[in-house]
Amino acid sequence: MEKKVAVIGAGNGGTAIAAYLASLGVEVNLCDLFPQYLEGIIAADGIDLTLDGKTTHQRLNKVTGDVAEAISGVHLIMVVTPSFTHRMIAERCYSALTDGQVVVLNPGRTGGALDFLNTIRSKGCHADITIAETQTLIYSCRKTGPASVEIFGVKKEVALGAFPANRTSQVLELLNPYYPQFTAAKNCMETSLSNIGALFHPTPVLLNIGRIENDKNGYRYYWDGITPSVAVLIKAIDHERMAVAEAYGVEILSAEEWLRQSYDTYGDNLYELLQHNNAYADIKAPTTIEARYVTEDVPMSLVPISELARIAGVPTPNIDAVIQLTSSIYQRDFRAEGRCAKNLGIEGMSKAQVTHFFETGER
Amino acid sequence: MEKKVAVIGAGNGGTAIAAYLASLGVEVNLCDLFPQYLEGIIAADGIDLTLDGKTTHQRLNKVTGDVAEAISGVHLIMVVTPSFTHRMIAERCYSALTDGQVVVLNPGRTGGALDFLNTIRSKGCHADITIAETQTLIYSCRKTGPASVEIFGVKKEVALGAFPANRTSQVLELLNPYYPQFTAAKNCMETSLSNIGALFHPTPVLLNIGRIENDKNGYRYYWDGITPSVAVLIKAIDHERMAVAEAYGVEILSAEEWLRQSYDTYGDNLYELLQHNNAYADIKAPTTIEARYVTEDVPMSLVPISELARIAGVPTPNIDAVIQLTSSIYQRDFRAEGRCAKNLGIEGMSKAQVTHFFETGER
Repeated sequence: MEKKVAVIGAGNGGTAIAAYLASLGVEVNLCDLFPQYLEGIIAADGIDLTLDGKTTHQRLNKVTGDVAEAISGVHLIMVVTPSFTHRMIAERCYSALTDGQVVVLNPGRTGGALDFLNTIRSKGCHADITIAETQTLIYSCRKTGPASVEIFGVKKEVALGAFPANRTSQVLELLNPYYPQFTAAKNCMETSLSNIGALFHPTPVLLNIGRIENDKNGYRYYWDGITPSVAVLIKAIDHERMAVAEAYGVEILSAEEWLRQSYDTYGDNLYELLQHNNAYADIKAPTTIEARYVTEDVPMSLVPISELARIAGVPTPNIDAVIQLTSSIYQRDFRAEGRCAKNLGIEGMSKAQVTHFFETGER
Repeated sequence: MEKKVAVIGAGNGGTAIAAYLASLGVEVNLCDLFPQYLEGIIAADGIDLTLDGKTTHQRLNKVTGDVAEAISGVHLIMVVTPSFTHRMIAERCYSALTDGQVVVLNPGRTGGALDFLNTIRSKGCHADITIAETQTLIYSCRKTGPASVEIFGVKKEVALGAFPANRTSQVLELLNPYYPQFTAAKNCMETSLSNIGALFHPTPVLLNIGRIENDKNGYRYYWDGITPSVAVLIKAIDHERMAVAEAYGVEILSAEEWLRQSYDTYGDNLYELLQHNNAYADIKAPTTIEARYVTEDVPMSLVPISELARIAGVPTPNIDAVIQLTSSIYQRDFRAEGRCAKNLGIEGMSKAQVTHFFETGER
């Protein structure tokens, strides 16, 4: 078992994972790119972890704003941050990465492993590292203060895919002692394309953007915002995502199947399943358009799906239209700055080459 | 002066024009595709016209549901209907059209003259007719009952373009005795691309569609619905429309210029100009998505702009994205059913051929 683990990210998820691993006796190096998130933990000399109604104080091995320092001499690196920081983290640590290290992106959104790999490779790092993506965060959890976190729920099963895919079992051997919930995905394409945020985040914001800017009370994001017509477009986008998965030979759940499996809900269509999902009842819409639902999920989720589709010759007109309109509204080039083929390091590859690359890591 | 005029359409605009022409001593044949609109006028033996605070009863020559009957022996035909009926009207009257007749579409939206012409030609009608488009309806008016109409305002100047353009002065000679407000546009491309509905209708509905379906009170369409982000996208679409006009060598007003010229408003940008336009204060949003703002303005306004752009090699990514997303949401192929190049009869033409066609009517 790994006795030292680096956790990058001191938000809700990272703080929970760091404290939980520490509670199992692991020496945890906790790092955040924004050192103000660490100040409370340094002052408290650790994290108060609340789990199953019991609160314990967990000391850490090291708390640092320096990624390279955090990962030095550590075999397993857990990255628990919004996906738009993956590239920044890679840029901060590429020269410190060494052969055999394993980076697990929790979660990777879509194409996270490739984005991370392409960044360190383009900086000249040739260390033989393995990068894995989880499909979603293992916990439902929330920081309750600057040095305290509560875990409300632990998911029963979370798929994990390594890059290259032929190393997935090695990564699970490292993780399963702490997290038996992680199971093998076919590859990173499966975890990447299982990203439900790509469906439930950008489109409902786009189709309610006038309301978000005008109604400062914050309507109910799912129940009021995903009306029948919004659900129709999400479903059209879901069909495109499923077609991309099929083209690359991976099996993923449709949004409807995922809702049925993940929640105690019912209904004949996507709209009804969302309306009957009580877990979504109280989720409020953002009160400004500067919400990660777009600024993260368009470049880090929709863009890579669209680019993988293009390589496979699968049309994604609705995904492309959402990328286009949000780019115009936000006055940003989400495709160029996001996980486009160039930034994933797969520009010019054929579908067969991409598949081979995911499987073996060889170009 | 024309002593006989056919008016097709017994809605607000058509009823007003029919009554006004009758008040000038013209023999008016009034027709509507939906005969129930005519019943009240038949029963009342005419129309009560209120203008400048005075109400007069105007008798008509003929009131009929048969377009062919209405236009028989009439030189000037005024079509005052939603643009999605233009094709239906052409289909009902193609065999009755005769050399020298003039059809004026009030207004044509975008590509109305070509759509009408292509329909009668594809039915085998080779009569030498002239079709003109006006940029907008001449009146602000409202039917106040089944056989009464009030004219609130008359626009000072309305551009009119004939197809072919070299006949515009002949059409104005017919119309100006009744309506000196009509002035010569360069051609139908100018009237078509001056269609402000293409800007102010589909996009604000799309970006508020969740709210339209959820908020049954009906928010204020312009003031609450065109927020800064919505205005940003309208402006991007306006840039595309202006680029198409430039490619075809016609001068049109930008949305901002048009607002400044048409209304007593002010502001540094499109958002402010709309917010400061008191004429828009009380206009309510539709309470269902089955609104002409999309079902008419996407196929009849955005589609022809996009298709003319494609022929000219002008990119219209935002217009195309709005067409794509509304088509998916409404589960209709707005491009195929709308004024695409095929339905305009210009498929396969080059930009130079289209320009020549608008000018001379010759392919």
